[in-house]
Amino acid sequence: MDIKTLDRGNLTPAESRQIFRAERYKGVTAGWSLGYAQCNMVILPKDLAFDFMVFCQRNKKACPVLAVTEPGNPEPADLAKGADVRVDLPRYKVYKKGELIDEPNNIEKYWRDDLVTFLLGCSFSFEEALLRAGVPVRHIDINKSCPVYETSIECERAGIFEGPVVVSMRPIPAELVPKAVTITSRYPYVHGAPLHIGDPEAIGIKDFYHPEWGDPPNMKEGDVPVYWHCGVTPQAVVMRAKPDFVITHYPSHMFITDKLNESLSIL
Amino acid sequence: MDIKTLDRGNLTPAESRQIFRAERYKGVTAGWSLGYAQCNMVILPKDLAFDFMVFCQRNKKACPVLAVTEPGNPEPADLAKGADVRVDLPRYKVYKKGELIDEPNNIEKYWRDDLVTFLLGCSFSFEEALLRAGVPVRHIDINKSCPVYETSIECERAGIFEGPVVVSMRPIPAELVPKAVTITSRYPYVHGAPLHIGDPEAIGIKDFYHPEWGDPPNMKEGDVPVYWHCGVTPQAVVMRAKPDFVITHYPSHMFITDKLNESLSIL
Repeated sequence: MDIKTLDRGNLTPAESRQIFRAERYKGVTAGWSLGYAQCNMVILPKDLAFDFMVFCQRNKKACPVLAVTEPGNPEPADLAKGADVRVDLPRYKVYKKGELIDEPNNIEKYWRDDLVTFLLGCSFSFEEALLRAGVPVRHIDINKSCPVYETSIECERAGIFEGPVVVSMRPIPAELVPKAVTITSRYPYVHGAPLHIGDPEAIGIKDFYHPEWGDPPNMKEGDVPVYWHCGVTPQAVVMRAKPDFVITHYPSHMFITDKLNESLSIL
Repeated sequence: MDIKTLDRGNLTPAESRQIFRAERYKGVTAGWSLGYAQCNMVILPKDLAFDFMVFCQRNKKACPVLAVTEPGNPEPADLAKGADVRVDLPRYKVYKKGELIDEPNNIEKYWRDDLVTFLLGCSFSFEEALLRAGVPVRHIDINKSCPVYETSIECERAGIFEGPVVVSMRPIPAELVPKAVTITSRYPYVHGAPLHIGDPEAIGIKDFYHPEWGDPPNMKEGDVPVYWHCGVTPQAVVMRAKPDFVITHYPSHMFITDKLNESLSIL
């Protein structure tokens, strides 16, 4: 089996995870096991896990928790029986006291009995729903990343965790904006309905054409900018808190679950 | 001001809470501050709070967490600025090692610096939406409580917390069942869409006409039984776990928030 000619989109989630586990592929997970939900990941010591979970509850549109593991247990059984978060993602980031110390392809040597894993919903899930409904997703059209901005809106603080709400922006043709709102509102566990539509300054975005993360916006004539809560929010908040120890997924190198995106809708 | 002639439904939530705080009224909260969300409450020591929160995440349709306070802080500021969970409910239940030790009208003497308060969404919120849409709610028509049943479905366990899913049942005219499903699906933070429609045996209900909690069903000709996840689930699970210390609201004596029911919808 040659990884390059593999039909990645049609692999089951378990097959994809197995390939990452064997370190036969170490790249981004976009396009793998299409239709299945991918997750952002934050791993924290148990003594910080409660405060982080309260932070996620208070900011649930930005930080939709899809699963939490017991301390030391690397299997998020609710989302993927038999999976192992230590080896099933293609790449990780490991931080000590706020400093990046490693970007490994597995985290077995860093594992501890007190580590709690949080898996968080991701906008990939609602982008699939938009595309299926005929709403274009401009950054996917040109094979780029979504522009992501810091706003002037503060998250609700919990313990040491605080920071600004971070949003992703998708240019939507004006006549499709109501449809984009309605569709994404059905997915409250993957950020839900947009936070804002239109003027970037109204939410404190400093430079629309130079986002803090991702690629510059690909606006077409007649497009309106639409902003959703973004999974970068919890990552940015954790980095700012500089906990003694934290592991996250490497950006775009996500955990692939056994849950269909559609199973995360309200219906 | 005479409590008996008071227009309870039109009081602001802060006014209602003030009356309970002054212990001028000690009864059920149904009918007070209409339109505003009322919450179930569980107060636990911090050392159990993380496991309980994970339990709620894993069983989020039964246990929708609307707010969690910092240990020792009695103000659930996200839901009601200035409120105090120690005095703002009409009545409480206090348990030690699983045994009921008191049913007081305030819990000031039981308060501790390590207590964490969970406020959980309640079906009152979606019942209002059903009524506004012309879907009858049969137990309200006859001024009784909703029948509530234990099912044979197990919750996802977390730490010491485990037990069966508990459901509430509302008889719905057959032609209105799709409408009842659609409306409640818009309220994922107050139990959301039904768990089951029809045959009670399919979900392990033992005796349809003798529910474990609440009053017997008020079925009319042409009604179909519709079952929703119920806020009794977390209460029953906590009781079963027999923690060293726990305080809950007294049944039907709820915490009234400053949030409109409609603000808990996805739209």
